[in-house]
Amino acid sequence: MTSAAETIAKDANSSFTVLKTLSNEQRSQALQAIHDGLKENKERILAANKLDMEHAQSNANFSASLVKRLDLSNSGKFDSMLSGILDVKDLEDPVGKVNLARKIDEGLNLYRVTVPIGVLLIIFEARPEVIANITALAIKSGNSAILKGGKESYQTFKVMSEVVNEILATKTDVPSHAIQLIESRKEVGDLLSQDKYIDLVIPRGSNALVRNIKDNTKIPVLGHADGICSIYVDKEFDLKKATRIVVDSKTNYPAGCNAVEQLLINKDISKENIQAIIQSLIDAKVTLHVTPEVKEIIAQESEFIKDTVEDSFDKEYLSFDISVALVDSVEAAIQHINIHSSKHTDSIITENKANAEKFLKGVDSGGVYWNASTRFADGFRYGFGTEVGISTNKIHARGPVGLEGLMSYQYQLRGNGHIVGEYVGGGGKKVFVHEDLDATKVEL
Amino acid sequence: MTSAAETIAKDANSSFTVLKTLSNEQRSQALQAIHDGLKENKERILAANKLDMEHAQSNANFSASLVKRLDLSNSGKFDSMLSGILDVKDLEDPVGKVNLARKIDEGLNLYRVTVPIGVLLIIFEARPEVIANITALAIKSGNSAILKGGKESYQTFKVMSEVVNEILATKTDVPSHAIQLIESRKEVGDLLSQDKYIDLVIPRGSNALVRNIKDNTKIPVLGHADGICSIYVDKEFDLKKATRIVVDSKTNYPAGCNAVEQLLINKDISKENIQAIIQSLIDAKVTLHVTPEVKEIIAQESEFIKDTVEDSFDKEYLSFDISVALVDSVEAAIQHINIHSSKHTDSIITENKANAEKFLKGVDSGGVYWNASTRFADGFRYGFGTEVGISTNKIHARGPVGLEGLMSYQYQLRGNGHIVGEYVGGGGKKVFVHEDLDATKVEL
Repeated sequence: MTSAAETIAKDANSSFTVLKTLSNEQRSQALQAIHDGLKENKERILAANKLDMEHAQSNANFSASLVKRLDLSNSGKFDSMLSGILDVKDLEDPVGKVNLARKIDEGLNLYRVTVPIGVLLIIFEARPEVIANITALAIKSGNSAILKGGKESYQTFKVMSEVVNEILATKTDVPSHAIQLIESRKEVGDLLSQDKYIDLVIPRGSNALVRNIKDNTKIPVLGHADGICSIYVDKEFDLKKATRIVVDSKTNYPAGCNAVEQLLINKDISKENIQAIIQSLIDAKVTLHVTPEVKEIIAQESEFIKDTVEDSFDKEYLSFDISVALVDSVEAAIQHINIHSSKHTDSIITENKANAEKFLKGVDSGGVYWNASTRFADGFRYGFGTEVGISTNKIHARGPVGLEGLMSYQYQLRGNGHIVGEYVGGGGKKVFVHEDLDATKVEL
Repeated sequence: MTSAAETIAKDANSSFTVLKTLSNEQRSQALQAIHDGLKENKERILAANKLDMEHAQSNANFSASLVKRLDLSNSGKFDSMLSGILDVKDLEDPVGKVNLARKIDEGLNLYRVTVPIGVLLIIFEARPEVIANITALAIKSGNSAILKGGKESYQTFKVMSEVVNEILATKTDVPSHAIQLIESRKEVGDLLSQDKYIDLVIPRGSNALVRNIKDNTKIPVLGHADGICSIYVDKEFDLKKATRIVVDSKTNYPAGCNAVEQLLINKDISKENIQAIIQSLIDAKVTLHVTPEVKEIIAQESEFIKDTVEDSFDKEYLSFDISVALVDSVEAAIQHINIHSSKHTDSIITENKANAEKFLKGVDSGGVYWNASTRFADGFRYGFGTEVGISTNKIHARGPVGLEGLMSYQYQLRGNGHIVGEYVGGGGKKVFVHEDLDATKVEL
């Protein structure tokens, strides 16, 4: 018997076979139609959103900030959601880019061409405008998407997905099953076993959510569980840059995955300078978890100074807390980071170019920074326009992931009856030409 | 307690932290030293190889072809293994290529730079010369590698790895634990759980081996279990090209993963032409597993004609067998292939350009071919120099995988004290510049 999850996954997959062949014009037209449809149904969507808000307000477990994030009627939020769809529509077509072209022999040419990945399962929490953003990204990149939103915004999602599916079915060439919304957590569990039909899972939410998904599927997962970022302050450093960067990295948005959690300080820095760095954090109301060595240097009692515990350097605080240790050298800092960090983003503060280069080359993380705040690790700040998440994977996409991270490639071979049996290695005598062509000039 | 597998994986990982920072000169010098060391120890290695051969010859389970593959003393095999190391040494450095450069703001630049992935676990069977090839690829690309060879060539592997490790330790800047050989199957099982330290598993061997590994690890696996390739013969086609390509794809090397297993024929092709295609396969001693429709057209009894069974179109024969069905159109062929093929390599035979383009765009496989044999799916034929395997993954590397498939990337951000709090979106008013720089002209 076919399960509900299998039907959803299969439908997404067969829609992909059609979606994959559509032109950029067809995909962009669909985004315009979705934009127009959501605009026309604004009142219906906001009415549903009101139901979600009422439900959230009556629930003692929901914080005021969550309720605020749910609210689509907030000043300009609906309109900026709509204009976001048009922004994605106007991005350069990521499909069909030729990035390798090679003449294999007379009349036999090889091309490596970008193509969509296939079927994406995207799981996210709370904010209802994300559905529009992700729908736009999926269609623009030619991928089918199965979306699971948070239960807090269930009513809003339901109406928006009805609108999207109706628009796709009646006004576009994109098959309506290319975008499917699922409602229950149970279905997510079942979908995670559909590795025959689903190519990539993108979870956006808490560590617990991401880790749970990674533990329960064979499908590749794009994203990050932890964001354990470090800053290393090198011996030859500028104090003003150091305090600015450390304080910004910690306090600009401590709940962000790109906030710093570990501070490593070179042991040869003067007592006064170490004290000044520490003081800048105390002034910003950050609690420091320090090793005995660091405590000795601080030489003051403060409610903001605590001792490190066993896992202090493997911890993602997501709060006004930071762990602090001394290290012997840039090499020791690199070793420490490669063992303890979550390979997200790590920064060195130094005026010594050789040490900076050593750090940038040695640290094994998605982002390696020199004299800059770890908070820059973000698709918007990198200029990617929009972002599907930040990846700590080392395979496929890494760091902030934009449209490009939703692409794969295929090798196209165009011949004229060519067979292997005539070539060296296949039993014949013909020799391969293997002449690189200018991929930027290829028109397929 | 630290297990043996954990120690191996940890050592590989900390060696990677050093290897990652070495220059192309240092990595290439290590390959030269390994080449020289293996050359000096030729007699010792061939003596060990003789032990493996004797063991294989005395074992009734080992076929003559396996014994032949084991034999390193075969004409020129040892020398070509050595020259293969120098070929890899002379490849362009894959590390540190800048493929994105962007000015984020004054004094704040973002670069996307290629880096090695990390620690590779490579599992392969039989042929002992593979150890030299994979060692060379790993070191050239800056990756640590843990190698497990087949037990048939245990003695050869053991001596070769002793030589390699001694050379690395005494004559190169590459840490000796960057290349480790493991001996037992038990260790493989334990290593598959070391996802904290190992980044990628590359199995080269039987379907059963690959599938077993995929089922037992959370580490990404690069490779393919099945190679179920299809050829679709379209309505407007050239009979000579069709018979050449179908016969070559099936018979050039039927045990290869790129051999064709399924033949789809457009139903509007004349009886005579369908019979001619069928006859070319019968002449080549291929057994055809045909649907009732096809059987009716063939209209002859032959020991080479059999009925299809339930899984005929999901089967990898790896022998002189092929399944044959009629389909209504190029669209139907695409649907059939996207459901039944293993996303390895599929080919269309047609003189109709529009249908060819439809096929190339619609089929969701690593290789999509027009009027060419599926047997071209191979790193050597693509001109990659050398190959670590063929991937049917859609994430990361796809199709034949060369040195490039062993690379990841990092984002480097180079600033001068820049903090997020001063920019729009982070609480400040500064606006990002986001100006693309010419990545080909960047020298880091």
